[in-house]
Amino acid sequence: MMRITRRYRFSASHRLRAAGLSDSANEATYGKCANPHGHGHNYVLEVSAGGPVDPLTGQVLNPAGLDALVNRVVLRAFDHRNLNAEVAEFAGAPPTTENLARQVWRRLSESWPQAFPGGPRLVRVRLQETPRNSFEIMEGE
Amino acid sequence: MMRITRRYRFSASHRLRAAGLSDSANEATYGKCANPHGHGHNYVLEVSAGGPVDPLTGQVLNPAGLDALVNRVVLRAFDHRNLNAEVAEFAGAPPTTENLARQVWRRLSESWPQAFPGGPRLVRVRLQETPRNSFEIMEGE
Amino acid sequence: MMRITRRYRFSASHRLRAAGLSDSANEATYGKCANPHGHGHNYVLEVSAGGPVDPLTGQVLNPAGLDALVNRVVLRAFDHRNLNAEVAEFAGAPPTTENLARQVWRRLSESWPQAFPGGPRLVRVRLQETPRNSFEIMEGE
Amino acid sequence: MMRITRRYRFSASHRLRAAGLSDSANEATYGKCANPHGHGHNYVLEVSAGGPVDPLTGQVLNPAGLDALVNRVVLRAFDHRNLNAEVAEFAGAPPTTENLARQVWRRLSESWPQAFPGGPRLVRVRLQETPRNSFEIMEGE
Amino acid sequence: MMRITRRYRFSASHRLRAAGLSDSANEATYGKCANPHGHGHNYVLEVSAGGPVDPLTGQVLNPAGLDALVNRVVLRAFDHRNLNAEVAEFAGAPPTTENLARQVWRRLSESWPQAFPGGPRLVRVRLQETPRNSFEIMEGE
Amino acid sequence: MMRITRRYRFSASHRLRAAGLSDSANEATYGKCANPHGHGHNYVLEVSAGGPVDPLTGQVLNPAGLDALVNRVVLRAFDHRNLNAEVAEFAGAPPTTENLARQVWRRLSESWPQAFPGGPRLVRVRLQETPRNSFEIMEGE
Repeated sequence: MMRITRRYRFSASHRLRAAGLSDSANEATYGKCANPHGHGHNYVLEVSAGGPVDPLTGQVLNPAGLDALVNRVVLRAFDHRNLNAEVAEFAGAPPTTENLARQVWRRLSESWPQAFPGGPRLVRVRLQETPRNSFEIMEGE
Repeated sequence: MMRITRRYRFSASHRLRAAGLSDSANEATYGKCANPHGHGHNYVLEVSAGGPVDPLTGQVLNPAGLDALVNRVVLRAFDHRNLNAEVAEFAGAPPTTENLARQVWRRLSESWPQAFPGGPRLVRVRLQETPRNSFEIMEGE
Repeated sequence: MMRITRRYRFSASHRLRAAGLSDSANEATYGKCANPHGHGHNYVLEVSAGGPVDPLTGQVLNPAGLDALVNRVVLRAFDHRNLNAEVAEFAGAPPTTENLARQVWRRLSESWPQAFPGGPRLVRVRLQETPRNSFEIMEGE
Repeated sequence: MMRITRRYRFSASHRLRAAGLSDSANEATYGKCANPHGHGHNYVLEVSAGGPVDPLTGQVLNPAGLDALVNRVVLRAFDHRNLNAEVAEFAGAPPTTENLARQVWRRLSESWPQAFPGGPRLVRVRLQETPRNSFEIMEGE
Repeated sequence: MMRITRRYRFSASHRLRAAGLSDSANEATYGKCANPHGHGHNYVLEVSAGGPVDPLTGQVLNPAGLDALVNRVVLRAFDHRNLNAEVAEFAGAPPTTENLARQVWRRLSESWPQAFPGGPRLVRVRLQETPRNSFEIMEGE
Repeated sequence: MMRITRRYRFSASHRLRAAGLSDSANEATYGKCANPHGHGHNYVLEVSAGGPVDPLTGQVLNPAGLDALVNRVVLRAFDHRNLNAEVAEFAGAPPTTENLARQVWRRLSESWPQAFPGGPRLVRVRLQETPRNSFEIMEGE
């Protein structure tokens, strides 16, 4: 098994507020991120796929195919966007980086079988919000 | 002359639109950054001061003093903010990183003589918007 | 399961010497790090916690709570310290980065249940001594 | 169990072409990397070993021993080389980073028992081709 | 005056040999880089332009315009290329990073007046060959 | 004029105390760095030389020559050292990074004419103490 990881970047804004919490509880939960006017980040996304190396091409997958998939289902939706206002899933859930990573995983998982039939598996999504804060989902966990 | 540079980070959102331009001209000028819902960045700020080394302390300036100044006049105003909605200077000018760097320079310059009387000069402000895009103002240019 | 990783920095000095080894064996084991006058590093610490995402807050844990814990039980003890002279555990064991990582793990593990009752687990500690040298402890290994 | 990771760098050139594919299929598979004149990269190699911490030395292994092994069986063969023309294994297989990582793993595995008898295990090889593209082999996968 | 810097990446291979030097003198001059089979690097290019900030747009220049220029006259010629075999200027001069930086400067300078008439000046080209080795040309030096 | 910059690393410990100041004034001046037991850093040193490009070799200077000089007069004295205890210049002056940078500049300047007779000039020394704190000396300032 070989694992390939490719790195992408996108910039977005968000504002954190849990609908079921009072203003002061939101402030205690999210600190400065609760600012109702919002703020933003340069997110760094890593997507990892795992599988055998094709003996003919020496590759786990065609990297251009992965880039096309990530562009189509992730970057087009999130890059240079206001996550609260422009991403449907965040109408009812705060766009924390945890929830954002879950959306990335869900979107990639749904399109994966068609993009890589019989091919490598999606094994890891890592989303960095700042150099001091990152989030990972791993296959099987 | 010795130059000291200290690095700070802040996260903010912005939306680029020049009041004197049509929608399509704004789109041509700012590309994805013209999205009316806004987006955001992790900015990296470097502030450089230059002057002689104090023979007693072996320092150009007290770094805690510089940190306090940058926190008071820059980070408190910009960190975790919506630049369009929460910074008065951007009511009438688009919050490009050029204009943001000029605000940093202006704010530091105004408070500098009181913070460092007879001390080192402010010689450079560098503001990075993304790892691929940065802006500098240098003393005397 | 979602994994959150937060990054911290501290600077410390140390000197490597195994009590049970001769001077030349210490030299062979630790190279330049055996210098009896000591030297130092900028350590980079990553702490990872794993658990479910709270449906209300969209978070694995409150990041401010993790920062407070790491500050209290790790950074206060190690930052800007001489590890040999100021950390009790290194009176009898050389402050290699392996032993330092074990102290970080032990200190976090002891305070974890009280800090995060019923919450996410401590799953990984990674300690970087230089950009070329790092050490990891992972849950269950 | 403690895991130590050490980082190395080497620069090499390569040209990607699968012998069993037509020119246009090679172009579709490898894109710009199919250029017959070749191109090159600064590779970053991480080698991880896992094992118990020696209670006497406080180390998983002697880092100088790992550096010597990596220099002898990996860097000497690959650094400042044309991988197609100068590495025997790539006479019959394209020097993709997947295949290069497998050569690193194979070379280290073969020499490991003699270099570290009864010692820590080789648990991971990670090879970065560019900051956006990396490959990992992990023990037991 | 404001200075904007944008960062680009390209990968290429080269082989260093001065036509007027003996084999052993080439070896002494270039070390491992004299390997006749060649090797390669991930180059990092920074291009800086300086000028006033347009009061209407808040920009020094249109970044998309700079990207288009750099793509057309620099990246298309150098990215994923063998510099010795595919770049005419290196038929008669060794493709050291010094000479490569001079070609970047020359190519940008020639096309600059047409790309940015009456606009900002090209003030700096920085080319990094490895994280330990970089080269700069600055306006007026 | 072309400028070449090469990067080096060293690790050292230090303790900051100005002989002419009281304990509380030292504390106010140096904060945590006044800890009498000392602490340490991974320093990053950049040395820049400027001059014309040799038309024969395509180089500003022989990089191996610069590395040898820096190793001999800088790294041998500072790497894996206690700056207070092992560097004579810091018997009478606190080993701040400002003073350390001045020692680097002085040591390189003294040996430069013999190492590079008629060759490029030393134009800049930059010393980074942490990723957030760096110091520069430039020729002619």
